[in-house]
Amino acid sequence: MDESWAIPGLDLHVEIDRERKASSLEHALRSAVRAGRLAPGTRLPASRTLSSDLGIARNSVADVYAQLTAEGWLEARVGAGTWVSGSAVAHGAVRPAAPGAPSAALDLRGGIPDASGFPRRAWAAAARRAVLGAATSDLGYAPELGSQALRATLADYLVRARGVVATTDRVMVAHRFGELLGLACRALAAGGARSIAVEEVGHEAHREIIRASGLTHMALPVDRDGADTERLDDRVDAVLLTAAHQFPTGVPLAPARRVAAVQWAERSGGLVIEDDYDGEFRYDRRAIGALQALAPEHVLYIGTASKSLAPAVGLAWAVVPERLVAPIAAERRVAGTAADVLNQHTLHAFIGSHEFDRNVRRLRAEYRSRRLTLESRVADELPGCRVSGLAAGLHCLVELPAGTSEARVTEEAARLGLRFHGLESFRTGGTEWRHPPAMVVGYGAPPPHRFAEAIDLAVRAIRRAADSSPATTAALR
Amino acid sequence: MDESWAIPGLDLHVEIDRERKASSLEHALRSAVRAGRLAPGTRLPASRTLSSDLGIARNSVADVYAQLTAEGWLEARVGAGTWVSGSAVAHGAVRPAAPGAPSAALDLRGGIPDASGFPRRAWAAAARRAVLGAATSDLGYAPELGSQALRATLADYLVRARGVVATTDRVMVAHRFGELLGLACRALAAGGARSIAVEEVGHEAHREIIRASGLTHMALPVDRDGADTERLDDRVDAVLLTAAHQFPTGVPLAPARRVAAVQWAERSGGLVIEDDYDGEFRYDRRAIGALQALAPEHVLYIGTASKSLAPAVGLAWAVVPERLVAPIAAERRVAGTAADVLNQHTLHAFIGSHEFDRNVRRLRAEYRSRRLTLESRVADELPGCRVSGLAAGLHCLVELPAGTSEARVTEEAARLGLRFHGLESFRTGGTEWRHPPAMVVGYGAPPPHRFAEAIDLAVRAIRRAADSSPATTAALR
Repeated sequence: MDESWAIPGLDLHVEIDRERKASSLEHALRSAVRAGRLAPGTRLPASRTLSSDLGIARNSVADVYAQLTAEGWLEARVGAGTWVSGSAVAHGAVRPAAPGAPSAALDLRGGIPDASGFPRRAWAAAARRAVLGAATSDLGYAPELGSQALRATLADYLVRARGVVATTDRVMVAHRFGELLGLACRALAAGGARSIAVEEVGHEAHREIIRASGLTHMALPVDRDGADTERLDDRVDAVLLTAAHQFPTGVPLAPARRVAAVQWAERSGGLVIEDDYDGEFRYDRRAIGALQALAPEHVLYIGTASKSLAPAVGLAWAVVPERLVAPIAAERRVAGTAADVLNQHTLHAFIGSHEFDRNVRRLRAEYRSRRLTLESRVADELPGCRVSGLAAGLHCLVELPAGTSEARVTEEAARLGLRFHGLESFRTGGTEWRHPPAMVVGYGAPPPHRFAEAIDLAVRAIRRAADSSPATTAALR
Repeated sequence: MDESWAIPGLDLHVEIDRERKASSLEHALRSAVRAGRLAPGTRLPASRTLSSDLGIARNSVADVYAQLTAEGWLEARVGAGTWVSGSAVAHGAVRPAAPGAPSAALDLRGGIPDASGFPRRAWAAAARRAVLGAATSDLGYAPELGSQALRATLADYLVRARGVVATTDRVMVAHRFGELLGLACRALAAGGARSIAVEEVGHEAHREIIRASGLTHMALPVDRDGADTERLDDRVDAVLLTAAHQFPTGVPLAPARRVAAVQWAERSGGLVIEDDYDGEFRYDRRAIGALQALAPEHVLYIGTASKSLAPAVGLAWAVVPERLVAPIAAERRVAGTAADVLNQHTLHAFIGSHEFDRNVRRLRAEYRSRRLTLESRVADELPGCRVSGLAAGLHCLVELPAGTSEARVTEEAARLGLRFHGLESFRTGGTEWRHPPAMVVGYGAPPPHRFAEAIDLAVRAIRRAADSSPATTAALR
């Protein structure tokens, strides 16, 4: 799958794996610097140039530069571009990390939870209780919809914590949100569905899963009231909504829009897929209950342990309308992916000993404090900017003065060793773009002791990008 | 999805879930007896009748009768059929289990491992080491092909235990054999493949996964030398082989057939998918190494922890030819099913502390002893029968005298409360059927203390079926 590419402006060919372009570019550039094939002082092409040449997203190129800058292979000079570091060592030598140098790029991308405080001992204790207490029948192949014990515990938890209407027989356990989204889409496609509405900004990975299932997606505009569900009509068979906290704009779906989504589903027979990825994490007041409760037979609710616990747990769950239980189970049978029972029993024991709730409270406090830090830094140091999005979850927006280029901020951040993406990079296209420029700030990715440092870099990147635009410089000073 | 069905010959309608016919039939019959809607002494239709009426496999109906007989709701009278138990209680009463009555049907189906001796404490210790030792980066989303540490450990293990040619970068971790088979088939289909050869007897679940991927399957005859790989030609793009120990006939693929499979792949560019589900379990002599070693770029090797440890572990692995690493990873990305890292780290710790090898040795001794028990019982009590299949793995065949009906044995076994299937029930069709009648004996499903009892029932079922056929009675006496 490797293809040889010439890096524009350099006498360098790199092997790029078509399926993993960004990581192979990073690897190739690091190797070239380490081996001396790129001499210190060599100027690298602008990320825009490399992006269009190699067909890699501009954000991804910026991330590669950020990583290599953080590692010390590259350095950036304000307004002048990115260069091979002056101190990069000669042929064949492995570069020693500079004292105190960060070992990896800092990261403010959205959607990445902070796993550093994962309750390791409590999880180990739950794993122990699960395996020592397992009956022999629990050690065999998993029941079709998941462990009965975990399904009952989740039904209970979701009723209590998210206001979901759930009984054990409607709960299905899988590994990831994406797996459940894919199964649902394939079940819909098998039943004749053709199209699903998605929010105009969201995860490209989810849209990729939808397309692979054979459905097409249409974009629904998102404004300060969330996705415009009043535009839903018979052209789509389903809609994917982040109702509690839109990703990445951070707004909740307004009450009238919630009702409109449900009424559309009832009227058309369509399905609402509710991605409740961080519904537990409202910290200004009590969380809004799940949309699912308004119409349990028309809403497929999906939650995950990835945000509220850690991605490494590898468990997610759905509460499924009755008509879809058998079709989704059938899709899973042919996907061959029934979940691991021991891991499910561990989560069951973990929730049962109240450790899950405890962890959610801990994370909520952590994210709340990060949010407050961000707000005060922006108010003090970026007067033309404002933080928007609900006081909830693990991300928000920093809106930039009109005229600021999000891509420029991303590039300046990369030069400082920070991964930092603009709102527009989450756009699916197909709608008129009316959002002011904004950066998405994920609170979760940096470890606690480096969050302040990440915000420092973000502030500097925004200032540098604004400095290059006379229109915005005034706003920021 | 429920449909109402009339049970032939009875004044009873049952709700049958189209997707789970057998389990809903079992539930409906149990409820009807419990509620008194089927009076004691009522004769149930022959499983053959019910099978064709409801469109359920005859084996599945026999399994339902076996389960309900074991639970005491039904009883069987030799040669006369199956009846609602005379002692079944009246309206509304919950039937108490008879003293000493088995709580569930015994099971000799193939493909089910014995998990009763699962090393619970060692697994709990490995889970603890894994989670306490995890770096924060290990708690995030899984790397694309699985945990680097587990992949390295598996590469090492597979080289050592199965003679596989493996390096870390070719190892991919997933949850189940079926998941990896599905990903491989979808990657092949995306690359233009259309057809895959399968052994004429095998798991229907695997064939279902193949069909769902968009490939068609063609049957390859199986004889005492395994699958006839010399018949492979350009009409197929891949072949699925249980080379070490054919499932369910139990024969190894003969050396010339191994070479033929590899030569076909090299000549045609086709892919061999090696299902090495129980390759560790040869107990007469050292295991034959994996076929994959003959041509690592033409064979996709798949192994699983389900047989060598327990299905509840939920981990499986593949060693992938280079050209397929990226396509299979891409299929997994859109399936959204990257595996749970903590569970992978647990297996890594478990293998690293030699517990995996220890468990394989323990199971090998257990299966070996069960095999010897079976052989001596058959030699002593079923003189017209013989045990065939390699002294390996967790199943073999009991070949029946010519003219014995496998389906009759299955039905007689069901009346005794035993699940017991014939060779032909694993058949895919499309080949001329030349096998003598035989029952598949899985050693793994009954717990150790009930294996002898299961064999008792099997012997009785075979004798009863033979008694009903004058041609075979002589052979058995």
